[in-house]
Formats: sequence, C-alpha cells, structure tokens
Amino acid sequence: MSSKRKVAILGATGAIGQRYIQLLQGHPWFEIEVLAASERSAGKKYKNACNWTMECDLPKELADMTVADANVEAVKKAGNVDLVFTSLPGDLAGPVEEEFAAEYPVFSKASAHRMESDVPLLIPEVNPNHLAPLVALQRKNRGWKGFITTDPNCSTIQMAMTLKPLMQFGLQQVMVTTMQALSGAGYPGVPSLDIIDNVVPYIGKEEEKMESESNKILGIFDGKTVQNANFVVTASCNRVHVKDGHLESVFVKLHKNPSVEDLAEAFRNFKGEPQTLKLPSAPENPIVVREEANRPQPRFDRYAGKGMSVTVGRIRKDPIMTHRYMCLGHNTIRGGSGAGILSAELAVAKGLA
Amino acid sequence: MSSKRKVAILGATGAIGQRYIQLLQGHPWFEIEVLAASERSAGKKYKNACNWTMECDLPKELADMTVADANVEAVKKAGNVDLVFTSLPGDLAGPVEEEFAAEYPVFSKASAHRMESDVPLLIPEVNPNHLAPLVALQRKNRGWKGFITTDPNCSTIQMAMTLKPLMQFGLQQVMVTTMQALSGAGYPGVPSLDIIDNVVPYIGKEEEKMESESNKILGIFDGKTVQNANFVVTASCNRVHVKDGHLESVFVKLHKNPSVEDLAEAFRNFKGEPQTLKLPSAPENPIVVREEANRPQPRFDRYAGKGMSVTVGRIRKDPIMTHRYMCLGHNTIRGGSGAGILSAELAVAKGLA
Amino acid sequence: MSSKRKVAILGATGAIGQRYIQLLQGHPWFEIEVLAASERSAGKKYKNACNWTMECDLPKELADMTVADANVEAVKKAGNVDLVFTSLPGDLAGPVEEEFAAEYPVFSKASAHRMESDVPLLIPEVNPNHLAPLVALQRKNRGWKGFITTDPNCSTIQMAMTLKPLMQFGLQQVMVTTMQALSGAGYPGVPSLDIIDNVVPYIGKEEEKMESESNKILGIFDGKTVQNANFVVTASCNRVHVKDGHLESVFVKLHKNPSVEDLAEAFRNFKGEPQTLKLPSAPENPIVVREEANRPQPRFDRYAGKGMSVTVGRIRKDPIMTHRYMCLGHNTIRGGSGAGILSAELAVAKGLA
Amino acid sequence: MSSKRKVAILGATGAIGQRYIQLLQGHPWFEIEVLAASERSAGKKYKNACNWTMECDLPKELADMTVADANVEAVKKAGNVDLVFTSLPGDLAGPVEEEFAAEYPVFSKASAHRMESDVPLLIPEVNPNHLAPLVALQRKNRGWKGFITTDPNCSTIQMAMTLKPLMQFGLQQVMVTTMQALSGAGYPGVPSLDIIDNVVPYIGKEEEKMESESNKILGIFDGKTVQNANFVVTASCNRVHVKDGHLESVFVKLHKNPSVEDLAEAFRNFKGEPQTLKLPSAPENPIVVREEANRPQPRFDRYAGKGMSVTVGRIRKDPIMTHRYMCLGHNTIRGGSGAGILSAELAVAKGLA
Repeated sequence: MSSKRKVAILGATGAIGQRYIQLLQGHPWFEIEVLAASERSAGKKYKNACNWTMECDLPKELADMTVADANVEAVKKAGNVDLVFTSLPGDLAGPVEEEFAAEYPVFSKASAHRMESDVPLLIPEVNPNHLAPLVALQRKNRGWKGFITTDPNCSTIQMAMTLKPLMQFGLQQVMVTTMQALSGAGYPGVPSLDIIDNVVPYIGKEEEKMESESNKILGIFDGKTVQNANFVVTASCNRVHVKDGHLESVFVKLHKNPSVEDLAEAFRNFKGEPQTLKLPSAPENPIVVREEANRPQPRFDRYAGKGMSVTVGRIRKDPIMTHRYMCLGHNTIRGGSGAGILSAELAVAKGLA
Repeated sequence: MSSKRKVAILGATGAIGQRYIQLLQGHPWFEIEVLAASERSAGKKYKNACNWTMECDLPKELADMTVADANVEAVKKAGNVDLVFTSLPGDLAGPVEEEFAAEYPVFSKASAHRMESDVPLLIPEVNPNHLAPLVALQRKNRGWKGFITTDPNCSTIQMAMTLKPLMQFGLQQVMVTTMQALSGAGYPGVPSLDIIDNVVPYIGKEEEKMESESNKILGIFDGKTVQNANFVVTASCNRVHVKDGHLESVFVKLHKNPSVEDLAEAFRNFKGEPQTLKLPSAPENPIVVREEANRPQPRFDRYAGKGMSVTVGRIRKDPIMTHRYMCLGHNTIRGGSGAGILSAELAVAKGLA
Repeated sequence: MSSKRKVAILGATGAIGQRYIQLLQGHPWFEIEVLAASERSAGKKYKNACNWTMECDLPKELADMTVADANVEAVKKAGNVDLVFTSLPGDLAGPVEEEFAAEYPVFSKASAHRMESDVPLLIPEVNPNHLAPLVALQRKNRGWKGFITTDPNCSTIQMAMTLKPLMQFGLQQVMVTTMQALSGAGYPGVPSLDIIDNVVPYIGKEEEKMESESNKILGIFDGKTVQNANFVVTASCNRVHVKDGHLESVFVKLHKNPSVEDLAEAFRNFKGEPQTLKLPSAPENPIVVREEANRPQPRFDRYAGKGMSVTVGRIRKDPIMTHRYMCLGHNTIRGGSGAGILSAELAVAKGLA
Repeated sequence: MSSKRKVAILGATGAIGQRYIQLLQGHPWFEIEVLAASERSAGKKYKNACNWTMECDLPKELADMTVADANVEAVKKAGNVDLVFTSLPGDLAGPVEEEFAAEYPVFSKASAHRMESDVPLLIPEVNPNHLAPLVALQRKNRGWKGFITTDPNCSTIQMAMTLKPLMQFGLQQVMVTTMQALSGAGYPGVPSLDIIDNVVPYIGKEEEKMESESNKILGIFDGKTVQNANFVVTASCNRVHVKDGHLESVFVKLHKNPSVEDLAEAFRNFKGEPQTLKLPSAPENPIVVREEANRPQPRFDRYAGKGMSVTVGRIRKDPIMTHRYMCLGHNTIRGGSGAGILSAELAVAKGLA
C-alpha cells in the first residue's frame, strides 16, 4: 500500500470512539485525520472534549486536535479523509451516516441502518461476500459515491461467529442467555450503585437485536438480495459486574447432531477471508477453543487474539436442544471498534475503499 | 406449643451453620441447644472455632458455647435435643446423618441422601405430601426411630418453586442458565482473585443437581414411591460477583401455551401448606411477581419475604420454547438454612418431629 | 406528643431524599406531607419522577404523591407542613433554603449555609448547645420566623463524633485519609467504569470541608458566637468500591497523651443529649468500639445502632502524632438523612420546632 | 552477554512465582531452567502443580516441566542454574535460602532475611551501592560462595522510591495510609466474601514492615555497615477491592519545606543506576508524575513503565506535616517479581552474578 488511508472518526469522544483511537495507533493502513463529535464537543481540543477512559494514555498528537462537528462540511474543512468510522448515538447516526455515505465509505457501529436490505451487516469472517454486491446495490439505489456498511450489535457478533461453523450441521434453533460487560453501555453508562453486588437482568433492545441480526448475517446473497438464514434465535440479556467481555450461555439445535468433538473441530478449524487475506487486524484463529472445565472467563479470555478472537468452551450435549457451549468476546474490540476496523480492512483489500 | 424444641446444628461453623444460628434467633418453636462440627472444631468455644461472617453480631450466649463433635454420643453429652439440622460437607454428611436418623428427625442440607427413594427431597410449599409417607417408609426400611429429610440444592429450590404452578399448564421442558452468588460456595469459598472483574462459567456438579432433583421434587407419591415428574431439565451454571441471591434465566415449554398474564396469575396465586398452616417461617407469598422491566435483581429482591420468597420477573413468550422468565431467591435463606427450618416447621406441624 | 409534625422533603427524588423517606416510615414524631424537588420533577407522580434505589420498596402511599416544585408557594399549596428537610443540590440550596427559613424550621444537608456564623453546624451528640442561641441570633439577624440548621458533610460527621470525646485530652492535630462509599456521590453518581477494580483518590471539595467544618462543630458558643476549636485538620479523600459506609484512617495528636485504654474508655462512655433525651433516632451508643484486629469494616459495621452509631477500632499509639484509629459510619444515615432527622428531633425536644 | 543465565524459581507455583514466569518470557539475560516448590508440588508437572492465575497463557514449554523440590540437591539434579529467585512462604524461606546462598546468588522476595545487617534490602534505583559491600561482608561472615539479597515488602518499595528524591529536602517524618490490592495476599488469598462491598482495615505485619524497612533502604553504607536513615514512619494498612496496584496516601515532613513544584521536579528528575546502566527491566522514569486532580488510580496507572514505574499525583502542601501526595505501584511487578528481576540485572551488571 503506497500510503496510509486517512480516516475520520465520528463520535470520537465516546467509549467506542476512544477505542478506535487506541486500536488505530500504529495501524499499517489507516491514520487518524479528523476527530468529530456532536455540537457540544465541536471546537474544543479533544482532550477537553472527552473523558478519556482507556487504560493507555491519550496519544499526545491527538490530545490537542480540535474536534470537528460531525457533518460533512466540517469534516472536509478539518482534513482530507478517505473513509469514515462512526459510533454516533443511535438517534443521530441515521441521517449523518447517509450524508457521509454520499461521498465516503462509512463503517458504522450504530444500529440505524443495520437491517436495511441494501446495507451489509458485516462480520468479515462470516459474510464477506455480502459486502461488494450490497455496496453496488446501495450505490445504484441511492446514487451514492460512498456507501454504508454496518457492524452488528456486540453480543450478536461473537455469537454469530460461533454459529457460522455450525451451519454445516443444520442449525435450527439458538437460545442464549448473556452476561454482558459494563463497557457495553458506554460511558458514563451503568451507575456503580446499580451494579455493585448485583446483576441487572435487562438491557434495552438487546434481545431484539440478537434475535433479528443473526439471520441476516448468516443469510445468503442470492444475486439480488440477502436471503435470511432459516433458524430461530431467542435471547435473555443481563448486565454483570465485569468491565469488558461478554459471556454467553448458548444452546443450539443442530439437525445433524454431530459429536462434541466434531463441534470442537469445526470451531477450531474455522477461518475466513480476513485470515486468507492476512488483514492486519485479523486474528490467527477467529475462534479459540478452551478445554478447561471453567473457561472461557472474561478476565482471562477477553484479550485472546488481541481482543479479536472469540473463545468457546464447555461444549457439551444437551438433552433438549442438541448442544450447549459458552462463548466470550471482547465487546469493545471484536464487538466494537475492532469490528469496524476489520470491516474497513476487508473493504480496502477488496478495492472498495 | 407448650415449650420450644431443642435443636442441634451439625456443621455449625460453616456458612450455612452460621445462617441457621442467625435465623433461629427468637424462633418461636426452636431453640439452639448444641452446636456441633467436625473434629477440628470440637472442644473449642464456638467464637474461636468459627470465622463468623454474618453481618449481625454473633449472639453472646452462643459465642462461648463449646462445640461438640458431630456424632451422636458427643451431641447427647452436650444436651438433650429434639431434632437436628445438618449442613455437613458432602463426604462427611452421609454416614453421620444416618447415625443421627436412628434417633432423631434430621433436616439435611447435604446432597448425600437426596436421591434415595425413601428420602424426601422437600420444599414445603411444593411437595409437603411426600414427607409423611416417605418418613414412614424410611422407618420401615431402615428401622430408625428418627428420619432424614433433605432440602434440594439452592439453585434447584427457587426454580422448582416457580415450576410448581406451571405444572397445570403441562410442563415439558426447562432450560436454565444461572448467575449464582458467592455465598453459595461457602466460606472461604471463591477466592477474590478468581471473581473480581469476572464470571466463572462452571460450578462443580451444580448442573447435574439441577437436572435431576426437580423431577423428584415435582413427582407424585403414588402410595408406594415417588413417581418422578415427566419433564426434561437442562442447566448451565455460572458464578457471578454478587454476595447473596441466585438469579436464573429460565425458558420453559408448556403444552397448553397459556398467556403471559395467565402465567403471572399462576405465580402470584401460588400458595402451599406452609401458608395454610401459617408456619412461622412461611412467607405470605412464596412467589412475588415484579412488573418492572429490569427486575428481579439480587440486591433489591433477595430479601423478599425475609429471604423466603422467590421473585419472578420478565415473563414473556418464547419463540422456541413457549415462555421465558427470570427468577431470584436468597440462596442461603430460601436456598439454605431457611429451607431446613421451614421443613422442620412442617414436620412439627404434621406431628412428625 | 399530641400529634405528628408534618414535614416536607425538598430534593425528595435524590439519594438523600429517598433515604429520608425510608427512615421516616413509622417515625413516631414526623410524617411526610409534601415531597418537593426541582422543576424537572415537579408535577410528576413521585414514582415516575425518581429512580428509586433504596433496597426496600417505595411506600405505596408516597408512590403516587405528586411532586411539588421546591418553592414556598408550591409547598404551601401541596400541604400544611411544620418543618422542612432539604437535600437540594449545592447551587440550588442556598436561596431556596433562605426562602423557606423565613417561615419554617429548615434542616439542611446542603453545604450552602454551613459556615455562616449564625447558622448551627449541628451534630446533636456533639454541639447541641449551639442550636438554641444560633437560632435566636439568626432570627434576630435575618428577621425570620423559622431558621436554618445544617448537618455537616458526611465524612466530617463521623470523624467529629470521634473527636468530641478526645477534646478532654487536649486535641491538637488530626490527619485523616478516607475511603468513602459510592452512595456518597448520590445517584447516578460514580460511573461503574470509573470504580470497578479501582480507587479514585479525589472527591471534589471533600478535603476542604473536612478541614474546615470540624473546628466549628467542636467550637464553643461564648454567648455571642461560636469560637472555633483550636486544632488543625488535614485530609486526603478517596472513593472506594463500597456501597455504603465511609471508613477513615485517623491520626491524632493529643496533648495529654492518654493510654490506649483511656481512649477506648472515652469512646465507649461517650453519650450526648440525644441519649439523655431519648430521642427516637438516637442510638444507645453514639460510638461503638470493636476489639477485633480487623474492624471496623463497612459491610459489617455500617448498620451499628441502625446506622446511627459510629464504629471505632484499631486504636493504637502513633510514633509521630500520639494515636491512630479507624472509624466508620453509615454515610447516608448518620452522615445523611439520619443526621437531619436527629437534628429535627433535638429541635422539637428543645421546643424550637 | 555471551549467553543467557539459567535461573531457578523457588516457590514457582505461587502468585509471585507465576509472575516471575510471565516476566521472564523473552528476557534478554535470563532463562528459566528449573521450577521448584514445596514437597506437595514436587514431582508433578508444573501445569498440574499450580493454579495458573496470570491473564496470559502458561508458556507451553513450562507447562510440562516437572517441579523440583525446593532444596539444593533436587534443584541441581533438575538443571545447572546460575542464580535463584525465591518467593517461598515466610516460614520456609529462611533456612532454604541460606542453603542456596552457599552456592548461588539468591534474590529473595521473602521477609526472612530482610533486616539482617549483612543482607541488602535492595531497590536498584534507591540503594544500589548497598549491594556489593554487603555481599562481600556476607560472604566473609558466612563463608558463602553465593549470597542473599532481598526485595522489600511491596507497599514499602513504592513508598521508598518516592522518599529517595525527598531526602535532599531533609525528610523527617512519614505518615502513610495504604489501600492495597488483593493480589498482595497471594492466591487463594482474600476470600471474595470478605471483600465484596467492603474494605478490610488490617493486613498482618504490614504496618510493622513499612515502619522498619524504609530506614534501612534509605540508610547509608558507611564502609562497615548500613546506618539507618533518620526519619520516622507510621503506617495504617487497608485491603481494598482492587486486583493489582497499591495506592498510598502519604504525608511527609520535609525540613527545608520546598515548593510543590520543587517536589514535582524532584520526582520527575529522579533516575538511578538501572537507568544509567540501561538494565533491561528498568523503566525510563522510575517515578511518573501525573498532573490530573484524580490520579494516580490503580486501574489506569499500575502498568506505567510496564509495571516498573511508581506514579505520583496530588502533590500538595500540608498544614500539619509539610506535604502530602498519593503514590501507586504495581504490587506484583515493581513490588514483586519485577523487583527481584531488576535486582538480579543489577547484580549481573556489577559482575556479582
């Protein structure tokens, strides 16, 4: 690659925006050109506009960058960018992303456009072939020079990655109970008084997202549109006292009822285009299988594959469905900014960005 | 009742033993006569033998009581007792409880005898009619003057209480993922380094207990033996960073597929013999139904009914099974010493102790 | 007392306001007549205006009460009240409390008026004799029919209570490092992401309050004004991962250098007017001394004396100052709403309210 | 350096032993040759003998290494080693370390020999010149070919590092209240039930260590012996709910009463021999000064300088002493195995090992 792509981050002051900054330090293909956020932050130095909560220090060259307003005109004025990462709040994201997509490739963590039929809901290891045709369709439909591609919800991403290698066994049903980390709620997010010595058995709209997104992700592009995969998902979502790393208790019904070892093999052998293409952020193993009886655990497994691998454990037969297992992923890396970066890498590798 | 029954607590120094002491303070029917524990503690003053971890102060009159060795001879020497509560460690419990049962009514929190066909696995609101006939059978089989009755595993008790009112709808399948409190592992139990910023997705033998005990509890005594109830249970058990209160995400398949409101009604209206008999430890409502979207929560609901009620919330339809809901109970009260005390109260009320 | 005083709570939706509601349930002298809060909440039903975070249920009769705007006119319209508890945010509190003091006895948890020379900074066990003369002075100065009396900052109250019995030994210097609970920051207060696996070594303005308030509290009314006590306080304040209960590591220099046992005796024997007058919220022992090497601890000692006692432990000699000890109090009971209620009880007992 | 020194780790299965393994991965000077532990573990594969609690995976080549018994004969049989790291439990450490010191350089984390007059109590940045003369003295006194050098207690190390640059201002008194991390108690260490929603204001023998060790560390070798530094330390030690990173609230009396900025300068400019010698584990800045009002914080600052820097913040004047500040260090890196490794690097650089 001759020179690095310049990127803008919209929603740069939020938890996901900060993680973008952290993960893009030293990235071989991308460099941060513009930090943009809502009006309230625009015009301030980044260090004053954000409450930096990453455990690393805020890079000095970004600390003094002036935050641009999150609109095309302001971003253009702030710099020449090649592509755009967005992690704007849900209500803002919709129209702003469309405005940018008219000119730029937009990689979005927001839910606004996820379920639109010409917008990819992308996990690069799972459905990379959705990207090019839906981008083409989108440009045709909407007259854009750029495009929008979206990352699924954090708890969906890690589950869907484990479902992909199960498709070969005839996946019919998925029941999941999640134990989700605090960082999933952003910052300031969950008040400490709500979660100390406690679990909160409710996360707004989370169950609905898990129940609808997986079928699109695992669907098949038939030349015209994505035909949703034909299995049923039901979810029960909980917030637990963990900083990072969603843990999920998954029960699946597999028509071919394979052995536990077959399942473990399928998880272990799973590779996707990011691995073939050797994308910079691709983990060697998208899924890591742990043999210990008490794994995966958030504190020990969330940084597997630098936070880009999903860890699976406790695979066993189930007397009602056919199998059950636990899966864990880092919700703000694989389930957050790492997802967006990997999607952008895939788009670059495919000549789309 | 003319005068109080005198009780011995075997395993008095452990977490459940300490909770027995706390709950029996001022009990109208029972008073503590003997505190017994393993050899290591026997002969010491109770305050020196135990690491008191209850949040109330250790009652002064017990602090200086000498701990007896947990065998019949030593307990007899220490006092005249009418009945015995045991919370001995699993491996010790089996033979010791049998020795005591030859002479005393034994109310056991240990798993040793739970699945024996002539031993009640008792939840007073759920299967009170198992008690008298199995005690009779036991005495006949074993030639005992006393008897053993057992409390189910803590995570089973609260779930089984919610399953009882669902039996009328044709309960076929139960899938449960638990988020269990630290006190369930006793003291010292879970090291803080294992659970800070973490979830542990494994509790030894817990899933097996949940999967086998419910069918016996909800079974029907047919005049000769308990015929196990005919539904399938599958469980996935996790330890979370909560002091007390197990939270469970339950999915059920009900043949008659009632409405959500029918389910809520069934939970709300559920009463059992302890309520009819007005047993001292019986909560007014065995099951409390919360309407809020984010309840039950351990810190807010564990003391419902003084820790003896199970709280249910988030009742909703399920696209794979038929329904799902959350339930929560205090694992060392309703799921621990409170269970034993209520069982003893039932036995007294029925003239068995 | 012929009939109960009717009270208004200003700032009723906040954490301290909620604790007032909890503590006033069944109070023998006071009953809640009006719940008032800022404009944003006014006009709503209380249950909709507040995020109830107490572990008990919100009393039903209050749940549907309409919240009044926190001004005299609105409160009058809402009911006839005899006295007013305020826990308004700092910036609002100043003028609103003055408006109410023109007509009502005002018991304030806000810092706005604490350091004014004609306003009592009251701990009923410590400086009850400041109340009547400063109220008289205030009325004379300001032409009010009512008055304002203030409670000290939560971390000051518990420390000042332990300093009172040390005055007899010639208290010269106090150095304190605090470990303060999350509830001290109100709700939503401290974000969980800030405090999980962490300590925050800074609480805005807390050190200044601890360093200035104690001298006024322990000062002597000389007939005209309160002459501040003549010792120096220095503080270092930290937020730790505890729900309720501030723990303080205190080092003191005592001119007379008493023995450790003399200190323990002085703490144990300390009583004040609330004990003599048998005020309803007065604990039997304002200070509880624990002998164990590892006490006081927040989870075990915060509810001593129903949250109204301060627990002291680890009293020992110090090679730089003369003594050191740990003290602990419940920051939202003794350090919060319980303080206001006890002050109001004192005022009633003295015929001032 | 022609080839790597081969090292043995005694106490390899414990928390500090595991951290040694982690920190020695890829070390340029040292490689692990023997893992030794108590009898209970000897003969087992390392992976079966230890409960691995580091967040990284156990290196494969060590997982299957057979654990040697912690005595010279067994260690010799297991491999040729050049030097020995020990983190044996206190009671075992004394005689075992002496046995090894007869032949090997021993770098000890145990307290057994710390206060002996011919044993260095070493912090390489603080008192590197104690090492060579005390080793010589030791060999002369005891007839050893090897030697013992000890690391101070974890909470002492970080404080003593901050005291070193204060010596120039005439350090007279130090008062410290600590908030110490759970990992300081080893594994299993603190039970979760003791520390959830709690602080424990007591750590056995910790205060005594802090009060005695600093004077030796900061003492001056006068040609014959170390003359203790002439200041007084008093400590109050607490365990808080933090995984790693001790936070300390320090008050100091400095005879010359410098300005706050002079103190900050002195901290910032502090360098020692490890920096001059460019030892592999030496951080660029032994002390990092943070300007933010709310730092240092354990979760954000413990990995400063890869866990080898101490972070200082909140430097301010004090009305009783002369100054106060907060300091924080990683207790199992700078305060644990990192300390031992840096000491060994210093010994190698000085030709002693």
